Amino acid sequence: MSIRVGILGYGNIGRGAEAAISRCEDMELVAVFTRRDPASLTIKTPTAQVVSADDMEAWTDKIDVLINCGGSATDLPVQTPKSAACFNVVDSFDNHAHIPEHFAVVDKAAMESGKLAMISCGWDPGLFSLARIFSSSIITDGRHYTFWGRGVSQGHSDAIRRIPGVKDARQYTVPVEETLAAVRAGETGEFTARQMHTRECFVVLEDGADAAEVEKKIKTMPNYFEPYDTTVTFITEEEMARDHAGLPHGGFVLRSGEVGYKDAPHKALFEFSLSLESNPEFTSSVLVAYARAVARLAAEGRKGCISVFDIAPAYLSPLSADELRAHML
Amino acid sequence: MSIRVGILGYGNIGRGAEAAISRCEDMELVAVFTRRDPASLTIKTPTAQVVSADDMEAWTDKIDVLINCGGSATDLPVQTPKSAACFNVVDSFDNHAHIPEHFAVVDKAAMESGKLAMISCGWDPGLFSLARIFSSSIITDGRHYTFWGRGVSQGHSDAIRRIPGVKDARQYTVPVEETLAAVRAGETGEFTARQMHTRECFVVLEDGADAAEVEKKIKTMPNYFEPYDTTVTFITEEEMARDHAGLPHGGFVLRSGEVGYKDAPHKALFEFSLSLESNPEFTSSVLVAYARAVARLAAEGRKGCISVFDIAPAYLSPLSADELRAHML
Repeated sequence: MSIRVGILGYGNIGRGAEAAISRCEDMELVAVFTRRDPASLTIKTPTAQVVSADDMEAWTDKIDVLINCGGSATDLPVQTPKSAACFNVVDSFDNHAHIPEHFAVVDKAAMESGKLAMISCGWDPGLFSLARIFSSSIITDGRHYTFWGRGVSQGHSDAIRRIPGVKDARQYTVPVEETLAAVRAGETGEFTARQMHTRECFVVLEDGADAAEVEKKIKTMPNYFEPYDTTVTFITEEEMARDHAGLPHGGFVLRSGEVGYKDAPHKALFEFSLSLESNPEFTSSVLVAYARAVARLAAEGRKGCISVFDIAPAYLSPLSADELRAHML
Repeated sequence: MSIRVGILGYGNIGRGAEAAISRCEDMELVAVFTRRDPASLTIKTPTAQVVSADDMEAWTDKIDVLINCGGSATDLPVQTPKSAACFNVVDSFDNHAHIPEHFAVVDKAAMESGKLAMISCGWDPGLFSLARIFSSSIITDGRHYTFWGRGVSQGHSDAIRRIPGVKDARQYTVPVEETLAAVRAGETGEFTARQMHTRECFVVLEDGADAAEVEKKIKTMPNYFEPYDTTVTFITEEEMARDHAGLPHGGFVLRSGEVGYKDAPHKALFEFSLSLESNPEFTSSVLVAYARAVARLAAEGRKGCISVFDIAPAYLSPLSADELRAHML
């Protein structure tokens, strides 16, 4: 029997989840919950219903796992504990500094309801977190490096858009190739923010805006741009639409260190990377694979809050244990 | 309390396991079991004992997990089921074609004894298997590529050594850079063995051996060398000792495919790689991290045979769940 999936929120991540489910024979999208007027939403899955988020509770017994597709800033801190009262859920909460408190709130809700809730699923946090735990458990003496990009940072793009005179903006985070090469070559020192990433900004100005002033405001913005080598390129609306419509992203997690006897060590380098034409569609594909795992674990009686660290890989795959051992091991 | 570890076999993998345990504060090597005369073996851990493999059973209650460090050809098919009668065990059985039957035999033994046995741990099978299961569960429509090297293949080195007139040999498996680049660039076709790897052979001849004849015998050897572009370089014993004493290895697992709606897909590339100065020491470090996991899972009551697919990542790390969420997620 198919795993019955619900989606809460039909933005980039929600649509990506719908797309990913359509590629899985063992999963079935049954409902999209929305805070908008359901009649205003057209989805691509003919067999699924569009339902007001206010009516979610009526679907408790009709959904094996709910994928929460809201934003981390304001949506998920409310939605995930609330929906964990009725559903097994997966979210992509990515505000690293607030993960422990989000975990505590969601764990409490899920323990009370007896449901299973997975938080912080995606690629960072998510697959990159897995690279960090596997590599540091094995290369016990070493150091992690995470490079992001080349890809669009929504947060940095938004920060530029808030500057007066800016009509639209797209910011690409770009790893510094020389530093990446140095880590691969075995360098294990610390690097500054400037040594690891550059920031490329493409900006459409409002009519009459002062380009030099906008560029200065961007480059001197604390935390966002000041610590980096930042380039600003002014483009037209047409160029923005033509050249910057996509949401590519990716990055690299490396761990460089040593193994063997301490008096005769040998170097070891562990590297994981992603190169993605669509950040949200890939993130959604991770959410859907883990939704399968959450539905299966919940069926075994697991409850409370978990993360990628708590799930054995076999739960992610539609293949049987025998098939996995024969073809993937 | 420390996890008490035993090692069976004190070759490259056994010594690597000893070294890896010495880097883990929560683990303690208590005994090295050997088929040699225990008095002939000097180990590096002053607090551990060297014990005849014949006397292993007396250690049943003194060891939380045993690491089987024998070879896959003849040792592990016997040792792992036998030791699973008394111990929780981990092995590195790497004969891919025979994994299902090894699993069946070990599972039977471990279910009867109530112990937990993990097979096929290391980097391939092991970490590369994890890369395959994660990537294929997420990028459902795509293709895997595994490149090995640059590194020493023991099997291929041994095959050369069996040729009359060869005194010593070292074979390096080398990925074809152009093909690796093509996969990274999004090509998703099939490649021949020759397109993916080259084989570099360094050979020391016996006095009076016919170099041309040896080179021909190597290059035309079915399965081992004939399907590849193979180079043969004759060197002196001194050069072999000076330049080829190490056992480096590594490789790449890539999955290239698409995500998103099928009528508007986006490319996604997943890449995992290792670059290792010492293949056996890294393999042993993987075994030791998973030995920690096996000891913990066994303490929770798990029994039977498992693989990397069945173990949640948190079990590998000495960090607590809170620490992991705060620092690694």
